[in-house]
Amino acid sequence: MEILNLTTNLSLKRTLESGNEVQLQAVREIIAQVRSNGDEAVRTYTEKWDGIKLSSNRVTEAEMAQAVNAMDAQIMQDLKEAATNITKYHEQQKRQGFTLPLEDGSWLAQKVQPLQAVGLYVPGGSAAYPSSVLMNVIPALVAGVERIVIATPCGEDGKLPDAVLVAASILGISEIYKMGGAQAIAALAYGTETISPVDKITGPGNIFVALAKKEVFGEVAIDMIAGPSEIAIMADDSAFADEIAADLLSQAEHDALACAILVTTSERLAKEVAAEIEQQLQQLPRQSIARQSIENYGRIYIAKSMSEAVTAINQLAPEHLEIVTKNAEAVSEQIKNAGAIFIGRYSSEPVGDYFAGTNHVLPTNSTARFASGLNVDDFLKKTSVVYYSEKTWQENAPKIARLARLEGLEGHARAVESRGWDKDGK
Amino acid sequence: MEILNLTTNLSLKRTLESGNEVQLQAVREIIAQVRSNGDEAVRTYTEKWDGIKLSSNRVTEAEMAQAVNAMDAQIMQDLKEAATNITKYHEQQKRQGFTLPLEDGSWLAQKVQPLQAVGLYVPGGSAAYPSSVLMNVIPALVAGVERIVIATPCGEDGKLPDAVLVAASILGISEIYKMGGAQAIAALAYGTETISPVDKITGPGNIFVALAKKEVFGEVAIDMIAGPSEIAIMADDSAFADEIAADLLSQAEHDALACAILVTTSERLAKEVAAEIEQQLQQLPRQSIARQSIENYGRIYIAKSMSEAVTAINQLAPEHLEIVTKNAEAVSEQIKNAGAIFIGRYSSEPVGDYFAGTNHVLPTNSTARFASGLNVDDFLKKTSVVYYSEKTWQENAPKIARLARLEGLEGHARAVESRGWDKDGK
Repeated sequence: MEILNLTTNLSLKRTLESGNEVQLQAVREIIAQVRSNGDEAVRTYTEKWDGIKLSSNRVTEAEMAQAVNAMDAQIMQDLKEAATNITKYHEQQKRQGFTLPLEDGSWLAQKVQPLQAVGLYVPGGSAAYPSSVLMNVIPALVAGVERIVIATPCGEDGKLPDAVLVAASILGISEIYKMGGAQAIAALAYGTETISPVDKITGPGNIFVALAKKEVFGEVAIDMIAGPSEIAIMADDSAFADEIAADLLSQAEHDALACAILVTTSERLAKEVAAEIEQQLQQLPRQSIARQSIENYGRIYIAKSMSEAVTAINQLAPEHLEIVTKNAEAVSEQIKNAGAIFIGRYSSEPVGDYFAGTNHVLPTNSTARFASGLNVDDFLKKTSVVYYSEKTWQENAPKIARLARLEGLEGHARAVESRGWDKDGK
Repeated sequence: MEILNLTTNLSLKRTLESGNEVQLQAVREIIAQVRSNGDEAVRTYTEKWDGIKLSSNRVTEAEMAQAVNAMDAQIMQDLKEAATNITKYHEQQKRQGFTLPLEDGSWLAQKVQPLQAVGLYVPGGSAAYPSSVLMNVIPALVAGVERIVIATPCGEDGKLPDAVLVAASILGISEIYKMGGAQAIAALAYGTETISPVDKITGPGNIFVALAKKEVFGEVAIDMIAGPSEIAIMADDSAFADEIAADLLSQAEHDALACAILVTTSERLAKEVAAEIEQQLQQLPRQSIARQSIENYGRIYIAKSMSEAVTAINQLAPEHLEIVTKNAEAVSEQIKNAGAIFIGRYSSEPVGDYFAGTNHVLPTNSTARFASGLNVDDFLKKTSVVYYSEKTWQENAPKIARLARLEGLEGHARAVESRGWDKDGK
């Protein structure tokens, strides 16, 4: 892993697949077909892409029960404990509306209400991602969303991974459809004969899923299109090289486009980490992916001071930030831009991926400058409410009419002035 | 205005201009030019589109002072009072982070911090929109955003409307650039030699502005692309037809694509409103625009009951909803989907456009199902923080490692397991 002196021009930018014109046309065709032909189109595409003809794509109670029964008891307990931790943290995010009394009996308010229906996309393929189920569903549950739907592609045998079904079962989610790709996104957004449409779609997916989410955006809400994972670690001479290297590799193993960066004030640590990375890489099952990530995007930067490191990190705005230094908490208070911060030696980043309680859906690609991780607010909406009494109206109508006329909107002025004058009887 | 029986298939959908390929290519070219040539490109496009060659496009203190001096004292006072009201309401939206203590000295937290720099686009053209300045800037100020920039195109004389400068001056905003269109959006997103880039761009604009905002989305955050205005009014026999008609016309005068709908249980009111609309239209300065809106999208629906009306409105999810009925507040509690609600006879919708304190940037096109009006949260971001003590780590590491291995991510498991064992000395 390359060691460089820290400069002010760090970047997380990678060349991401944004989809080509052929893919986009394919996605548009799929969406149009699902809008016209509903379930039949979903069935056809499932046969084409997932290799199975399903008479019904809704997961049955029997399938759920079977998955729960097959699950290792220890893992079941781990998943439940993770769900409890995630729920506790997200409950702290829940908020109420307010009422602001004005003079003369008038008031303003903000109603805060959950979205009514949301859909979670869970990618299929070789691996199962029960943690994605927990991280996407729990904020919606805490927000009070009534209907939560999961869509995920099945294998050629028509089966879904037990772990995904078990995670859903722990959370009480029973509306699960075996469908993937753009057809799943279209079915969630527009509905079919058997699937009611949702108001928001969240969850990661391949390029077809990402393109389809962008296409249906506006018809429904979507979460951010997440990029490959990133970690930046700030460490001083108190850190252990093997631990830092392991944490860097834990991100690198996600994706060849993942980005792992160490910023340290310790030359000793820099060198030891570079050596540890090479050694640990050789033992890693996902060595090939992790090696590409480290070679292309992995960097060790030597900073003159922790304050120089803070400035660089704030410019970088990484998805994950570990601070493994003396006074790590004080350092964290200077961080303005990061998706999630992990403080101290024992807060290894995977702690947050699975278990601690914070969300693992986080802003990538330097968007932590302006974006937040998935949270309860993403499943709530706010409505403002105005109640003006006659007296408040009477006192303020002339002012409002003047402001409307200043903008050339005479109809606005007249609407406000139309009230009351001679019609008190009613 | 057409009178129909209420059905379950109401729609706010209009054929909106989404930009054609020629416009999109033009916008992409402008953005590329501004990225390469900075200020020089902005100057060139300003000369081309706004008809003036500016040596510097930054508004001077002298220009600000002149605008303030020229402003009518009464209007100045009205604008200040509106700013105070808007600030008071939005201050209620402000939120703090939290810390959640766990066992054994561990804790989780959520930091809530303002974005660092935001840009507000104010459209130019024939009218001045000081209310847009107040509604976009105040939530950012309340959130604590350090740097707030305004971009707005000037006239051929190089001048900006006094009302816009005065509104900015009241809020203490002094970084204002005379630039419009896609070049303004590009300069805000990517920066130039004289303009630092921002983290988020809000505010309405024409099709070139909307396309440019979509193009730079991801590099910076943007607010929603707002569609033409809408109002739905629920009214019973207690309402006055002249007031209802005036409020419907106050939305219709915005735009030929605006949508004004009355849902009423009173046939008497329906007929009287239809007659009033025609009569008031004849006296309206913006009659031609309002008439197109009413003819194309204006409708009066007769509902059998208020509960049928509530169901229809929740499907419609209008930007603005007035409830002018007996027990209007109780009716409002049944509303799930609306951008803003105005309760009772004296809460005419323009009250909220200018003065009451709620925001007038609201979700259109039925997106109130999942979106909220502009608010303080739009200028805040949340960062999660994890601190695990040695004991908490020790207790939970095996669980986290099992969950990581369940997903096939051995590197994650090893990172968590790498801690501590024999290295206690340091």
